[in-house]
Amino acid sequence: MSSPTVKLASGPQMPLVGFGLWKVPKETTAETVYNAIKVGYRLFDGAYDYQNEKEAGDGIRKAISDGLVKREEIFVTTKLWNNYHRKEHALAMAKKQNEAWGLGYIDLFLIHFPCALKYIDPDVRRYPAWWMDDAGTVSPDKVPIRETWEAMEELVDTGLARSIGVSNFQAQALYDIMTYAKHPISALQIEHHPYLVQAELLQMARENKIAVTAYSSFGPQSFLELPPAFAKRAKNIPLLFDAEPVVNASAKYKVTPAQVLLRWATQRDVAVIPKSNNRERLQQNLEVFGFDMTPEELEAISGLDRGLRFNDPGFYLPNHPLHIFA
Amino acid sequence: MSSPTVKLASGPQMPLVGFGLWKVPKETTAETVYNAIKVGYRLFDGAYDYQNEKEAGDGIRKAISDGLVKREEIFVTTKLWNNYHRKEHALAMAKKQNEAWGLGYIDLFLIHFPCALKYIDPDVRRYPAWWMDDAGTVSPDKVPIRETWEAMEELVDTGLARSIGVSNFQAQALYDIMTYAKHPISALQIEHHPYLVQAELLQMARENKIAVTAYSSFGPQSFLELPPAFAKRAKNIPLLFDAEPVVNASAKYKVTPAQVLLRWATQRDVAVIPKSNNRERLQQNLEVFGFDMTPEELEAISGLDRGLRFNDPGFYLPNHPLHIFA
Repeated sequence: MSSPTVKLASGPQMPLVGFGLWKVPKETTAETVYNAIKVGYRLFDGAYDYQNEKEAGDGIRKAISDGLVKREEIFVTTKLWNNYHRKEHALAMAKKQNEAWGLGYIDLFLIHFPCALKYIDPDVRRYPAWWMDDAGTVSPDKVPIRETWEAMEELVDTGLARSIGVSNFQAQALYDIMTYAKHPISALQIEHHPYLVQAELLQMARENKIAVTAYSSFGPQSFLELPPAFAKRAKNIPLLFDAEPVVNASAKYKVTPAQVLLRWATQRDVAVIPKSNNRERLQQNLEVFGFDMTPEELEAISGLDRGLRFNDPGFYLPNHPLHIFA
Repeated sequence: MSSPTVKLASGPQMPLVGFGLWKVPKETTAETVYNAIKVGYRLFDGAYDYQNEKEAGDGIRKAISDGLVKREEIFVTTKLWNNYHRKEHALAMAKKQNEAWGLGYIDLFLIHFPCALKYIDPDVRRYPAWWMDDAGTVSPDKVPIRETWEAMEELVDTGLARSIGVSNFQAQALYDIMTYAKHPISALQIEHHPYLVQAELLQMARENKIAVTAYSSFGPQSFLELPPAFAKRAKNIPLLFDAEPVVNASAKYKVTPAQVLLRWATQRDVAVIPKSNNRERLQQNLEVFGFDMTPEELEAISGLDRGLRFNDPGFYLPNHPLHIFA
């Protein structure tokens, strides 16, 4: 089975369930992606930062050459990292990323974070880009968001990207882009789970025809496997899989707690991009349209909200120089 | 007694306690301001939106001509309303506002909200500006924040304003201004009380030498007197004056709960602008430097945080078209 889709402001349809490539090891990415396509996945959510774009592209190209799918049935999302916000760097990097995927074009290109860091030559230090330079310092650069957005628009104009959007942006930054955008903000990708519901941001996006994709749909779960500095905030938080309204819905609909969490998002028009290295869970994560929870059940899950953000550089970066969610 | 000050990034000193003119009736503003100066107030926080700039200016000018203070001992803050974000409108409106105050210059000029609404000719409908046009509609206009910020910078260049800043901005919008600002963001004015602590935003401001001023320091109290749509969220919330850590500190230091709330802010380097139409409370609000709470007491008060915002147009405007805090 494949996933229902949502129509983007730019025109194309985006699958509501996709496969997230964050933390998928480079060595197994091609095979994992190939298997995911077999299971029915059509959207792959990557980023320069995830360090596996080439390998994901390899997996997709193999599936195409084996006749499993056509290019136009696949939806590739990728993201521009913080060191490449200057227009010339953004354009060069997007070209490089597009070549790594090797699929002719990118379906959706996002600005990964609303903060520019000083340029790092990708030929000198290709990976990891991450937040710190070689000296271990976080070095912001003075690049207006408008400059980066206009580079993204150029990607659409030249055909490299079909749609563009942003990730980790707050409403004020979205509104500001909307004052000068020539191409719509088609999508917004944000951390989103029952501990971080952000109802007002979802409403703002809906009113402005910005499709929302959730990352870290399982909440703390996604962060426990990271190094201590990043996992710290997630450590003492009860897992969402054990939360009462999630367990109740799981029992009632005979689905896994993970399926409940994904359905809670998609029933509220939020796309999801779970990842799994396990074939059975890969399949389960895609099969989340066979049941509908009641409004009361959805609200009970939303009631777990604590405004709790795990992917917060203001919290986990040394000296905290980037409070981008404050 | 007068208030300690904080040095702004632009150079001048700003008093840590000032008098807020929001909701002060036009008819009594001049007298209230005059009396406030007598009591020791030196900072007056106004806005085009408060509809009493001319009267506040009258009060200050009377105090100057009576020899109570000199112009340079007074610190006037005012704000540009949403309908005047286009450069030509901002410049014309600032000139008009400066003339209304009649004090030669404005000490600190702020952009009131990070959202532009369609122009309303101030000669046709001078007051109230507020959020809605004559048809009762909230009509956003596509003006980039940069255009408005550059108008503010022109106010500094022409001498109309000594310092400039913003109000109700989130971190992402602040960082973006910092990429192109020629004059520093000297101040940020935000809703701030123990139900809305915003520790990370305060830290961001501190790191970037942006002085923070709190409005609505008493929390729900400030909103109960407003029309029902605006008061709704405040109605069922316990008053901060009755909160245990506030009551405890009030008893221990023999001060009023209001004084505790103001001191909680100023001890954390946040300036405050309470208003009162009552002379005794006017005096009390200024006398908030005679005691220091312990770090534990400050933290107990901060522990009341609920992320609860009362001045939220996304909540109180019809059809909610402006989710500027999402």
